[in-house]
Amino acid sequence: MPMLTNPSTKYLPYTAVPFPPNYVRQWPARRTTVAPTWLSTDLRDGNQALVNPMSNLTKLELFRELVKIGFKQIEVAYPSASDQEFQFVRSIIENGEVPDDVSLQIITPARPDLIKRSIGSLSGTRHAIIHLYNAVSPVFREVVFRNTKEQTIELTLNAVKLVKKLTEEETARSGTHFTLNYCFETFSQTEIDFTVDLGNKVLETWGKASPDDKVIFNLAATVECAPSNHYADMVEYFSTHINQRDCVILSIHPHNDRGTAVAAAELGLLAGGDRIEGCLLGNGERTGNVDLITLALNMYSQGVSPGLDFSELAETVALVCRCNEMETPARYPYAGQLVFSAFAGTHQDAIKKGLDAQAARWAEVDRSGQGIKYWAMPYIPLDPKDLGYGYENLIRVSSQSGKAGAAYVIKQTMTLDLPRKMQVAFYKVVQEESERIGKEMTAALITSAFKQTYCLDSKPIGRLFLHSYQLYPLSPSGGRASPLSDYSCDLDNLTPGEDFDSLLRFEGKLTIDGKQRTIQGDGNGPVLAILDALRADLGLDLAICESAAQTINPDSPAHTKAVTFIEMSLPGEPPGKPGLGSAWGVGISSEVMTSKCRAVISAANQLVGSREFLLPKNVFSPRSMFQTSADSWLREVKLRAGRLLWQYSEQERSDPPNTKIPLQI
Amino acid sequence: MPMLTNPSTKYLPYTAVPFPPNYVRQWPARRTTVAPTWLSTDLRDGNQALVNPMSNLTKLELFRELVKIGFKQIEVAYPSASDQEFQFVRSIIENGEVPDDVSLQIITPARPDLIKRSIGSLSGTRHAIIHLYNAVSPVFREVVFRNTKEQTIELTLNAVKLVKKLTEEETARSGTHFTLNYCFETFSQTEIDFTVDLGNKVLETWGKASPDDKVIFNLAATVECAPSNHYADMVEYFSTHINQRDCVILSIHPHNDRGTAVAAAELGLLAGGDRIEGCLLGNGERTGNVDLITLALNMYSQGVSPGLDFSELAETVALVCRCNEMETPARYPYAGQLVFSAFAGTHQDAIKKGLDAQAARWAEVDRSGQGIKYWAMPYIPLDPKDLGYGYENLIRVSSQSGKAGAAYVIKQTMTLDLPRKMQVAFYKVVQEESERIGKEMTAALITSAFKQTYCLDSKPIGRLFLHSYQLYPLSPSGGRASPLSDYSCDLDNLTPGEDFDSLLRFEGKLTIDGKQRTIQGDGNGPVLAILDALRADLGLDLAICESAAQTINPDSPAHTKAVTFIEMSLPGEPPGKPGLGSAWGVGISSEVMTSKCRAVISAANQLVGSREFLLPKNVFSPRSMFQTSADSWLREVKLRAGRLLWQYSEQERSDPPNTKIPLQI
Repeated sequence: MPMLTNPSTKYLPYTAVPFPPNYVRQWPARRTTVAPTWLSTDLRDGNQALVNPMSNLTKLELFRELVKIGFKQIEVAYPSASDQEFQFVRSIIENGEVPDDVSLQIITPARPDLIKRSIGSLSGTRHAIIHLYNAVSPVFREVVFRNTKEQTIELTLNAVKLVKKLTEEETARSGTHFTLNYCFETFSQTEIDFTVDLGNKVLETWGKASPDDKVIFNLAATVECAPSNHYADMVEYFSTHINQRDCVILSIHPHNDRGTAVAAAELGLLAGGDRIEGCLLGNGERTGNVDLITLALNMYSQGVSPGLDFSELAETVALVCRCNEMETPARYPYAGQLVFSAFAGTHQDAIKKGLDAQAARWAEVDRSGQGIKYWAMPYIPLDPKDLGYGYENLIRVSSQSGKAGAAYVIKQTMTLDLPRKMQVAFYKVVQEESERIGKEMTAALITSAFKQTYCLDSKPIGRLFLHSYQLYPLSPSGGRASPLSDYSCDLDNLTPGEDFDSLLRFEGKLTIDGKQRTIQGDGNGPVLAILDALRADLGLDLAICESAAQTINPDSPAHTKAVTFIEMSLPGEPPGKPGLGSAWGVGISSEVMTSKCRAVISAANQLVGSREFLLPKNVFSPRSMFQTSADSWLREVKLRAGRLLWQYSEQERSDPPNTKIPLQI
Repeated sequence: MPMLTNPSTKYLPYTAVPFPPNYVRQWPARRTTVAPTWLSTDLRDGNQALVNPMSNLTKLELFRELVKIGFKQIEVAYPSASDQEFQFVRSIIENGEVPDDVSLQIITPARPDLIKRSIGSLSGTRHAIIHLYNAVSPVFREVVFRNTKEQTIELTLNAVKLVKKLTEEETARSGTHFTLNYCFETFSQTEIDFTVDLGNKVLETWGKASPDDKVIFNLAATVECAPSNHYADMVEYFSTHINQRDCVILSIHPHNDRGTAVAAAELGLLAGGDRIEGCLLGNGERTGNVDLITLALNMYSQGVSPGLDFSELAETVALVCRCNEMETPARYPYAGQLVFSAFAGTHQDAIKKGLDAQAARWAEVDRSGQGIKYWAMPYIPLDPKDLGYGYENLIRVSSQSGKAGAAYVIKQTMTLDLPRKMQVAFYKVVQEESERIGKEMTAALITSAFKQTYCLDSKPIGRLFLHSYQLYPLSPSGGRASPLSDYSCDLDNLTPGEDFDSLLRFEGKLTIDGKQRTIQGDGNGPVLAILDALRADLGLDLAICESAAQTINPDSPAHTKAVTFIEMSLPGEPPGKPGLGSAWGVGISSEVMTSKCRAVISAANQLVGSREFLLPKNVFSPRSMFQTSADSWLREVKLRAGRLLWQYSEQERSDPPNTKIPLQI
């Protein structure tokens, strides 16, 4: 039988609440500014709905967690349902598990024998709440109990009388203070005027409700059967029609059959609710009770303290899941593993910017002592750190993610701030790898891809690997001076057309395609010198497109690292216009100079591809700066310092040194 | 860093919508009576958020399912994000996968290059929707884009102009009709008057919105940051302030960060929303988009046809889960495996009664042709059969469940209607077994326990097993007549003090503690006769407490079975007051007589416990009806027919027959 094309022939719409004409509802314009009283029914309503109910040992473990979170009212059992349930109540009372400020609630149906046994379970506790329930909706009255409204009222009032008598006797015996919590089971499916009438009669029968000793009415949406605004209407109607309103606590008990229990609870609070009943992670029959974690953190993220502590949410969630033998869905609000994650590139980009801007803003508050460090983060409405999470999952990278995600990961794992254009380049690497493996690129995979791509390892990864090098300042005559130990050339300024201070000679020991070689070149500054060496000795003619520098740990000299990012291109690509033939390199070192040399080799490794080096087959060692490689070509290099232009002509390795010819520009 | 005790120092509350004083909101009093336009973004927003995004083959599979369900607007890709995405759009267009009445939607950021590429992907489709988006909230303007409001407007309008130009060119080329869907990303976090202003300018720039060719405004709750009533307020404000309202479709796009996306969508519809954007099962970034299945079935259960078909919900859910590589939580509305289940005994009892009452009510509608067969079921707001589910999971049994659950299972698996008191008895068995194994009692385990307890097997289970028997009517003189082939004694009337028609002799072949025996007894009706045999030959003195009968398949003679339920008690227990010493038995047979005999043996098996039978060690065969067992005792049995009282005195097995002494009452 398929879904009906006209379901109105089978399903009746909800009955509107009989507000007078032109009545203006109060709840839609209100705002929650204080937390309600919380009642956890994890150990009762939640437990009853489990495929495998908890053992009493497990219940005790969860009870302790509830106390630790800050619940002051905990429904612990259905004592008349089984010996095990009864014994649980006895055990926590007798073993001193119940703090003085925590009230135990137990549930009992409105049947004399069960009421008696239930109240008996509570003997000796300081404060107890008797949750007396019977279903009052038409379908229950007519089908389940075959009672009229009058019989339902009579049954209820007899039960209230008995609870009153028995609790007064128990109070006389043991001093336990009792509160009546009368539950209109199926409240939200019941004629609202009948519930008000019944409520008033319960108040009258109880006869001793006062502002200091209120009666609790549980307005149960036992089954969620209508939109959340209808539930709010019912609560507001009840709240504005019940007698002795100041002697009454309205308790909201929503279930989640329509997926709107949280909203029903929130709107129910606006409509007059004082108290919320629910379970951690929304456990309970069918779709469950309202989730108290979501409710509490919704308040928290609006600046309202819930009075419940979820500072170690992951631990709490793990414990609840274990006790209930259920898992938390990945997209579950606050508690799901994907909740504080972004996969979409635009989201990642915004979060990255948001984190940076917020850090700056908070630092300014710290500095000036002005303003508040409020949270304003794209896509992330609550600081994960407040719940004991780190930021490491904020950005996750799939083939659908953008550049910011991968860059964010590298920032987190390696503290590197990739230049924007380099983010684009590296993202292509990640995307290809993600599509290749068909899986999420985890932080570990992204970091590994980064190190592999940019040859960031102490062992050779690419075809070129720099073992050691020396830089010599060259005298005007071209002679060699002593090796530099430091050098302060600002690589950021190393764009074509600028001047540099000092002519240098680079002599480096490299592994090239697995063999040890030495290469040598001259240039103004180390980058141009090593480029000269690559061109002269390997036939690798690289141009600088763009570069950037970063200092890691600038305030901690022992741990300071210099980072050089450099984009280079192969011949044929116009400098500064990187295309397919450009690549980024990264160098990291405690010495600025070394970071630069490493960055050049890092970029060169990506650009060489499989092309052959113009390298003589024999191993050669330091040679004249004017030697060139074996191929026949002519190159000009513009060593801008001193406005010298050096022309290199093809020469055999056996040629004598010092044949370079200065040219005028 | 723990949760803050005063979170107002970190989290700012939502900004109220600037309704004029005394403004009366319209949405709280409204009711949804027609379905919105649905837009599935499973293949875009959903896919973007996946740990492992779908392959295009998987996307195609899900696309076909969406079409089958009935979606007429489907967002299929982010074509400018990758070649793969672009190609997906091309492939479904070129391969004729798009029905004529289905519009393809694609998303593009407000950037010229990406707009161009995106529109290019749609060439040749019949009707396309361009989802143009940019984030407009303060944090995005200030932190992410560093734009003023004016710059944001300019950027938006330039993009709208470009979309207009390019789509008009494409329409001229290929005839594709385009609709503009402008998305205020982060709408719910933006100054509402700014969104209205921007919306009006977009309308002006587009310049051709009409009632027949509307512009769609996507009012995105990109991040759910405030209660659902606030979102409704924003939608109502926008709806009542935007120009050309009759030329505009308001599209609701809620996310679920606060667990209230479904409510926000429902209230947003009341506030003026015309269209809903979401995903099946609520897939999407973080906590996901609003779940379209829940929304659609919420409408359906209120009698409003959603225009989407989930008649085979389990299959749809399985497909979506497979495509998304995610699981459906057990308590997920409508789709979770525990949703149409009840574990609590009171719930089970009510459902059982509800099913029976509804069956009767519907049968009456069928009979009379009057009224409608509406659904009114305790705890189950929607008929699982409408979604292609059976009722077999409606009631599930744990140690926390009550009698009705176990009884319901037996009704389902064995078509047996257990008498109420027998439900209580059998429930104890189930509860003990459930506590013993510490697991849910599945239907199979419950059925197995039932068969074991009541010895319902063709092989011996208990200490007593009835192989065959004969019944002889006894003549007034006590002589034996021919065996009965049928017998119509109404066992329901077999309570002490009543009369029966006919005196019978029972001769049965039993396996008793593994050995073949024959026992014999006399009584008015087969039950009293077999009881006599048990007492006389085995020393097992049983009294009848209560009994009931049922006929299975009464309308199908070949499959008709008679069922006898009988409760019996051991000596010492007053008849009719079953206590620890009482037990139920069940007998099932195509013959009424045999069902009765089997029921007695079934009950006897539970009552014998380990007590020794008063059975001579030798095998004996048919003997006098006046022989008694070896023990020395005196019993009276009241054979009520004919008002005879028979006294049995201790006699040796070798004693001659016919020594019974009639006594006067």
